[in-house]
Amino acid sequence: MKNVPFKGIIAYPITPFDENDTINLPLFRNMVEKLVVTGSHGIASLGSAGVMPYLSDDEKEAVTEATIQQVNRRIPTLIGVSNLTTERTVHHAQFAEKAGADAVMIIPMSYWKLTDDEIVAHYDAVAKKISIPIMAYNNPATGGVDMSPVLLKRLLEIPNVTMIKESTGDIQRMHFLRKELGEDVTFYNGSNPLALAAFAAGARGWCTAAPNLIPELNLDLYKAIEKNQLAEAQNVFYKQVELLKFIVAKGLPRAVKAGLDILGEESGHLRKPLKPLTEKEFEEFRKILIGIKN
Amino acid sequence: MKNVPFKGIIAYPITPFDENDTINLPLFRNMVEKLVVTGSHGIASLGSAGVMPYLSDDEKEAVTEATIQQVNRRIPTLIGVSNLTTERTVHHAQFAEKAGADAVMIIPMSYWKLTDDEIVAHYDAVAKKISIPIMAYNNPATGGVDMSPVLLKRLLEIPNVTMIKESTGDIQRMHFLRKELGEDVTFYNGSNPLALAAFAAGARGWCTAAPNLIPELNLDLYKAIEKNQLAEAQNVFYKQVELLKFIVAKGLPRAVKAGLDILGEESGHLRKPLKPLTEKEFEEFRKILIGIKN
Amino acid sequence: MKNVPFKGIIAYPITPFDENDTINLPLFRNMVEKLVVTGSHGIASLGSAGVMPYLSDDEKEAVTEATIQQVNRRIPTLIGVSNLTTERTVHHAQFAEKAGADAVMIIPMSYWKLTDDEIVAHYDAVAKKISIPIMAYNNPATGGVDMSPVLLKRLLEIPNVTMIKESTGDIQRMHFLRKELGEDVTFYNGSNPLALAAFAAGARGWCTAAPNLIPELNLDLYKAIEKNQLAEAQNVFYKQVELLKFIVAKGLPRAVKAGLDILGEESGHLRKPLKPLTEKEFEEFRKILIGIKN
Amino acid sequence: MKNVPFKGIIAYPITPFDENDTINLPLFRNMVEKLVVTGSHGIASLGSAGVMPYLSDDEKEAVTEATIQQVNRRIPTLIGVSNLTTERTVHHAQFAEKAGADAVMIIPMSYWKLTDDEIVAHYDAVAKKISIPIMAYNNPATGGVDMSPVLLKRLLEIPNVTMIKESTGDIQRMHFLRKELGEDVTFYNGSNPLALAAFAAGARGWCTAAPNLIPELNLDLYKAIEKNQLAEAQNVFYKQVELLKFIVAKGLPRAVKAGLDILGEESGHLRKPLKPLTEKEFEEFRKILIGIKN
Repeated sequence: MKNVPFKGIIAYPITPFDENDTINLPLFRNMVEKLVVTGSHGIASLGSAGVMPYLSDDEKEAVTEATIQQVNRRIPTLIGVSNLTTERTVHHAQFAEKAGADAVMIIPMSYWKLTDDEIVAHYDAVAKKISIPIMAYNNPATGGVDMSPVLLKRLLEIPNVTMIKESTGDIQRMHFLRKELGEDVTFYNGSNPLALAAFAAGARGWCTAAPNLIPELNLDLYKAIEKNQLAEAQNVFYKQVELLKFIVAKGLPRAVKAGLDILGEESGHLRKPLKPLTEKEFEEFRKILIGIKN
Repeated sequence: MKNVPFKGIIAYPITPFDENDTINLPLFRNMVEKLVVTGSHGIASLGSAGVMPYLSDDEKEAVTEATIQQVNRRIPTLIGVSNLTTERTVHHAQFAEKAGADAVMIIPMSYWKLTDDEIVAHYDAVAKKISIPIMAYNNPATGGVDMSPVLLKRLLEIPNVTMIKESTGDIQRMHFLRKELGEDVTFYNGSNPLALAAFAAGARGWCTAAPNLIPELNLDLYKAIEKNQLAEAQNVFYKQVELLKFIVAKGLPRAVKAGLDILGEESGHLRKPLKPLTEKEFEEFRKILIGIKN
Repeated sequence: MKNVPFKGIIAYPITPFDENDTINLPLFRNMVEKLVVTGSHGIASLGSAGVMPYLSDDEKEAVTEATIQQVNRRIPTLIGVSNLTTERTVHHAQFAEKAGADAVMIIPMSYWKLTDDEIVAHYDAVAKKISIPIMAYNNPATGGVDMSPVLLKRLLEIPNVTMIKESTGDIQRMHFLRKELGEDVTFYNGSNPLALAAFAAGARGWCTAAPNLIPELNLDLYKAIEKNQLAEAQNVFYKQVELLKFIVAKGLPRAVKAGLDILGEESGHLRKPLKPLTEKEFEEFRKILIGIKN
Repeated sequence: MKNVPFKGIIAYPITPFDENDTINLPLFRNMVEKLVVTGSHGIASLGSAGVMPYLSDDEKEAVTEATIQQVNRRIPTLIGVSNLTTERTVHHAQFAEKAGADAVMIIPMSYWKLTDDEIVAHYDAVAKKISIPIMAYNNPATGGVDMSPVLLKRLLEIPNVTMIKESTGDIQRMHFLRKELGEDVTFYNGSNPLALAAFAAGARGWCTAAPNLIPELNLDLYKAIEKNQLAEAQNVFYKQVELLKFIVAKGLPRAVKAGLDILGEESGHLRKPLKPLTEKEFEEFRKILIGIKN
C-alpha cells in the first residue's frame, strides 16, 4: 500500500474564536488535546469543521502550528490547505509540510466550476512541491465542485495523492472506487450519516467532527467493524445516527459549538456571518445529545 | 411482529412475450420455477421487472394465476397490483387475494403528483377491501411519486400495511424508518446496488430481479448477513455489484432478457416501446456476466 | 410551413365525473362549448388536464367523439392519445383520426425510462399509421421522460410530427429549437407561468387549461403579442401570473375544478385517488381568482 | 424609486493577468475604456467575470481604484465586494465607497450554507457601514447559496439594499419579485441566456460580460425593449443567444479571454487553476463569434 498514515477515526476540531473575532488558540489546543486523549486515531485541522476558508493566511498558519505542537506525534496529523488559487494552495501545503504535518487534505474549491483538467493540474502542481501524501477531498456541498469517481481515479495516479475522502454521501461512489482500483485503494468516508454503510463498503477510516461530542460511540463503531461484528456495528450506529444527521444538517461549526455548550464545555464563538443555532434548534439538539449520553 | 410473510431474497420474474406481443405463459412459468428451485425465499410477479403497467387487466390476471399455481405454496408469493386509479387497484388486489397470493405490493403510480392525503386514502381504500398484508413500495424513478419516510410511517398505521419496500437507493431513508419505528419495522431494499448497505442497515429482505441471472451470489450475500459475517458479505457483494448496477442502469426487463440470452436460456421478447439492449450494451453485459460466472 | 393546424390559445378542458365515478359527458360538452364561445383558437381534450391516463379505453373514445361533435369544426381539435405501449397508442391515434380530429398529441409515457431510440421508434410507428399531424409533447413532470431538444429535433424529421409542445418551463429549450430549426419550427408552450417568456421567444401558441377560468386574460395576452406590444403583454401577463402558478402547483384537474366552484359553475367530481383542494388551498385560490375578476 | 443608479447594459470587465500572475492593470484599464466608449450604461468590476474571489485584498483595491479612475464618472460604477466573512465584506465595501463607487454588489458567498437570518445580518452589517446603495446578487452556481425570492424581498427592507441581481436563470423568480413588490422593485438580470425573457418580465437592466465581445448586439436588444418592439428584440436576441449560452457554459473569464483572442485583441492570462479553453472549444467559439460579426 502506498504512503497512507491514517485509519479508523480521524477527528476534526472546530476553530473557536473569542468575542473579538480572534482565534482562541489555547481553547483550540484544549479541543485537540481532548480528541487525542479520548482515543481518536488521527487529527485533521483546518477542515470544513474548522472553517478554514474563513481564516486569513496568518490564522491558518497559527492553527497548523498549534495542531502539530499539541498532538506532538502521538497520532498522525492531517492539515487542510485548500484554496481557490493554485499558488495559495501550494503555499499552505509547503507550510504544513515544514511544520511537521503527516499529510495534507485538499478540496478543489470553486467559484468558477473547474474542469477535470484544471483540477488534475491543480493537484499535480501541489504534489510536485511537497513530499508528504495528499488526501483528495470531494465535497460538492461545501466546495462546489463534484469530482466524479473517474476523476478521483485519475488523481490517484499522481504519486503522492494516496487517499480519497468522499463526502457526497453516495455509497455508490465508494463501490466504484473499490471495484475499479481493487482492495488497495484507500478511501475515507466524510459523510457522517453514511458511517456504517461506508465501513461495510470497505472505507479505511471515518473523517468526522463527531468525536468533539461523542468519541466513545464513534470509536465503538470502528471497533465492531474491526472485529467483523455486523450486528454490533449496526447497534452502535443506530445509537448515534440522529446526532450524525443533525450536525450535518445544521453545519458542523454551529452544531459542534452547540453540543459543547450542552455538555457544559467551553465552546468559544463563531465567526460572522455564521451564527449560533436558534433556541429551538438548540433544544432539539439537547434532547438528542442527552438521550445518547444517558 | 405484524403479518410479514417475507424475508431474505424475494425474486422478481420478468414477463416474456412471444413474437406476436402475447405473453408467453409457459415460458413465464419456467422462469418462476427456476427462481423457486434455485432457492429464492419469495416470488414477486407483476413488479417493475414484470412490466406490470404495460399489461392489460386480463394479462395481469393471467400472470397472477400462473404465478400462484406454479409456486404452489412452496414459498410465499407477492403480487403487484398498482394502478393509477384507486378503483382498479382495489380490483386487482381483490383478484390477487382470491387467487391465493400471500401479499400484494402497491406503488402509488402518478401522472398528477399525488398529495400525501391522496396516497394515504388510496392505500386505505385498498386495505379495507382485502385481508392479506400490503407492501408499500416507494420508487420515484418508475412510479413518479416520492413517498417521504414520514409518509411511509403514516402508511404503516393502516393495519394491513405491514411492509415497506424502499427503492430510492438512499440509505438514509432506511435509517429513518428503523430509528423512528424501532426494530420491529419491516423494510425491504429494492435498490440492487444498495444491497449490502441495506442489509447492514437492517433490511429484512432484498427485492430483486438478479436471481433470474445470478441466484447463488444473491443468496450467498444473505447467508453472510445472517451469519453476521461482514467481511464475507463485503466480499460476495463486490463480486456482483457491477452486474447490479448494470441491470438497474439499463432497465430490468431489457437487462434480464439480455442476461438470459448470454446464458443461453430462453428469454422471449419485450413489449414495445421497450427494445433490446444495443449490441454494444449487450457486449458490455456479456463481459460482466461471464466474468462473474467464471 | 408543414401541416400545422394550431396557433394562439389552445384550450384544455378537464374531464368531469359524476358521483358514481362515471364521466359526465353532458357537463364535459358544456365545458368544451364554453371554451369555444369564449374565443379559444383550438381545443385539446385528453391532455393532462383531462386526466387521460386515468381513463379506460372506452372512456377515452367517448371523450374523443364528444369533443369533435361538440366543436363541430368551428375551431381545430387536438386529441391526446398517449399510452405506455406503442400498440395502444396506435390504436387511439387511429380512432382519433377516424373520429375527425385535426391532430393528435403524444407524450412518451414512461414506467421504465425510454431510450431515445425507443422514443423515436414509438413516434415513428404511430406516424406511419395515421395521416393527420402529431404534436410531440414533452412534460417530464407528468410523463416521466425528459426529451432533450436534440431528441425533439430528431422527432421533427418524421414527416407528420410537425409540432412540439414544450412543458418543462425551461425557456432555453425553446431558444434551442428556434436556433437549430429556424423560424419555421412550430413550438407551443405548455408551461403556464412561462406564457409571456415563451411568446417572446417565438412560441406559436399556448396550450393551457386556464381558459376554463380566465379566457379573456389568456386571449388578451396573445392579442398583445400579435400586435407586437411588449408593454401591454407584460401588463396583462402580470394580472394572471399568480393564477397560472397556482393551477400548475396544485395540479390542473384539482385547481380547475376548484376555480369553477369559486365562479359558481358546475365542476363535477374528480376520479380517485385525486381529491379536491383542501379548504385552505381553496380559500387561497378564491382570493387570487376573485382578485383577478374584479 | 429608491436610490438606483443603473439601468440598461451594465458591463463586466474581466481581470487580466500577465505571465507572472500579476494583474495587468494597464490592460484592465483599456478593457474598461472600451466598454465605456462602446456605449455600456454602467461598469461593474470585481464580479464573477473579474474573478474577484481569486484576488488578494491588495489586488481588489487596485482594481477598484483603476475602475473608478478610468470611468471617471462618465457612467456609474458598481464594485463587487463580496467575501466569505462579514468583516472583510465591510472592509471592501467601505473601501469602494471611499474610492468613489456609485454602488456595491454583494453575493453571500458560502462554504457552510448560510441560513436566511445569517444572510440578512450579513447584508445589514454592511449596509450600516456605508451610505451608497447595495445590489444583492443571487447566483447559486458560483456563490453556493440560493436566496429565495422571499429572502430577497426581506433584504430589500434594508434601507440601502435597493437592487436585486438575479442570476439563477429562473424567470419565475423575477415574476415573483415584480408581483410581490410592484412596479417599483428594481431587479436586474445576470443570466445571459435569459436576457430577452428578463427584459420581457420587466428587468431594469442586464448585468453581462458580453459587451467585452459584442457590445452593439447587447445594446440593440435594450434599445428594442425601450422602444416596446418585441419582434425586433426577438430578432436581435436570436442573433446573440448562442454566444450568450457558450460564454456561460464555459465560464466567463475563460470565454471572454478566448473571444478577445479570436477578435485579435489583447486578452492577458488567466490565474490558475483556471486554464484557457481547449483547442476544440476555441474553434467552436470562433465559429459562433465570427458568424455573429459577419
